[in-house]
Amino acid sequence: MSAALLHRLKPAVSAAAIRLWSCKPPLIEPTSAAFIHRQPASARLYSGLMASGAPLFRQLFESESSTYTYLLADADTKEAVLIDPVLETVDRDLKLINELGLTLKVALNTHCHADHITGTGLLKKKVFGLKSAISKHSGATADIQLSEGDRVTFGKHFLTVRETPGHTDGCLTYVTDDERMAFTGDALLIRGCGRTDFQQGSPHRLYESVHKQIFSLPGHCFLYPAHDYKGQTVTTVDEEKKFNPRLTKTLDEFVNIMNNLNLPKPKKIDISVPANLVCGLHDI
Amino acid sequence: MSAALLHRLKPAVSAAAIRLWSCKPPLIEPTSAAFIHRQPASARLYSGLMASGAPLFRQLFESESSTYTYLLADADTKEAVLIDPVLETVDRDLKLINELGLTLKVALNTHCHADHITGTGLLKKKVFGLKSAISKHSGATADIQLSEGDRVTFGKHFLTVRETPGHTDGCLTYVTDDERMAFTGDALLIRGCGRTDFQQGSPHRLYESVHKQIFSLPGHCFLYPAHDYKGQTVTTVDEEKKFNPRLTKTLDEFVNIMNNLNLPKPKKIDISVPANLVCGLHDI
Repeated sequence: MSAALLHRLKPAVSAAAIRLWSCKPPLIEPTSAAFIHRQPASARLYSGLMASGAPLFRQLFESESSTYTYLLADADTKEAVLIDPVLETVDRDLKLINELGLTLKVALNTHCHADHITGTGLLKKKVFGLKSAISKHSGATADIQLSEGDRVTFGKHFLTVRETPGHTDGCLTYVTDDERMAFTGDALLIRGCGRTDFQQGSPHRLYESVHKQIFSLPGHCFLYPAHDYKGQTVTTVDEEKKFNPRLTKTLDEFVNIMNNLNLPKPKKIDISVPANLVCGLHDI
Repeated sequence: MSAALLHRLKPAVSAAAIRLWSCKPPLIEPTSAAFIHRQPASARLYSGLMASGAPLFRQLFESESSTYTYLLADADTKEAVLIDPVLETVDRDLKLINELGLTLKVALNTHCHADHITGTGLLKKKVFGLKSAISKHSGATADIQLSEGDRVTFGKHFLTVRETPGHTDGCLTYVTDDERMAFTGDALLIRGCGRTDFQQGSPHRLYESVHKQIFSLPGHCFLYPAHDYKGQTVTTVDEEKKFNPRLTKTLDEFVNIMNNLNLPKPKKIDISVPANLVCGLHDI
């Protein structure tokens, strides 16, 4: 238990929350502050507290923007997090969350999306106490501003934050405590990657992010992207290291590919980005 | 090993195949005959041969008909089966199968689909030695005609056939050896079920199939349907027993619901059914 005291808590955490935390880390204090803890991504302070059971997990799809939303929950405490909710599918997601008897604690975004409006703002209106979270480098408003090494806990499980900029400055990858699953947003797609020609896109940064922060995960780690356009649902680190048509190239070749994609501007960018900068609440 | 000899092999199996089978059951003889074994669905003859590892598994989606295709493989022997392949996504599926170093042995159909053309026939043209399989009650041509209790093996794993008619006469549900996953075709969809107003549809039979053959699986068993139209990917037996809006009703109420859906005729039924009766090879 003393290991929990080693966490460097965020300044916003009150003395009361620290006291509660030191007693029963992830279970007692269900406020946003208690969910977030900052420490090196490689640290394993919780190993003694981990149950053998994997978290409850659901992959959900929004077909207009081809976006995946991910639901993760502790099967015992029923605490849940939702990664990349989409405005149009908020009711579907909430119906499932209610049916499964879960308590949604945090709505996480991998980044400030340009192709759809996040469901985070609407979820906050519908779920009492729900906290929103996004990278502190995203420029977006949220209850929790995440950065490298932060942990988002739900029951006995947690997600560790890895910063993976390049598609945007504020792109994050969320890694489960057992490193069996990672949610890569638009940094790494199945046999592809996010574009780097708008917002703060940088092919150099994206290449470095994927190689240092994602390809360093175990080879069998399942990678779940924010989008897929071909009906694929999951990949692994080993597969992408071998078969990703862009990221297996040298940096120079990658940069050349990314600078010559000549993609059309995302249809919804002028609506989505301003809305997503304020948690999806713009104009709804 | 002697347990393997207890299997009642199909008449088509040669004496040579039986000899090989009795030496090293699923690994030596990669012909269709060696893959299929008939015995009661509840039997557990293989338990001593089972490794602890789950099979390699991928869920794939075809967006025009909202069809799920499922790839299962033995991680050691690389033998694979593909459930409900779709004509339009054959190349995608083969690319993945090749990248993963798998050998596709059997293309299984849960039933004779009315909304899309199966990829089975095209796969047979592209994959040497690939066998097709479908229910013997489907009326369709295939290399292997399956019925209740048959087993389709791939490496150390197998799928057990459960007959679940009602959407069509030849609907099958395939259950993994550990009963952790079942592929329900159109018999049970997530919070729904297949329609019963064409082909040999019968709401009475479908109700009985789901309650006797699917709801009798362990509550935690993951159910993977042939289709989903709302971006959902999986459900469980427990969930459907509680939340399926049709199949939680009484038989009379269910029949009344199914007889009053007033759904339009499937767009592709006049093309798909004739093609699927001959393994998807009609007109391609």
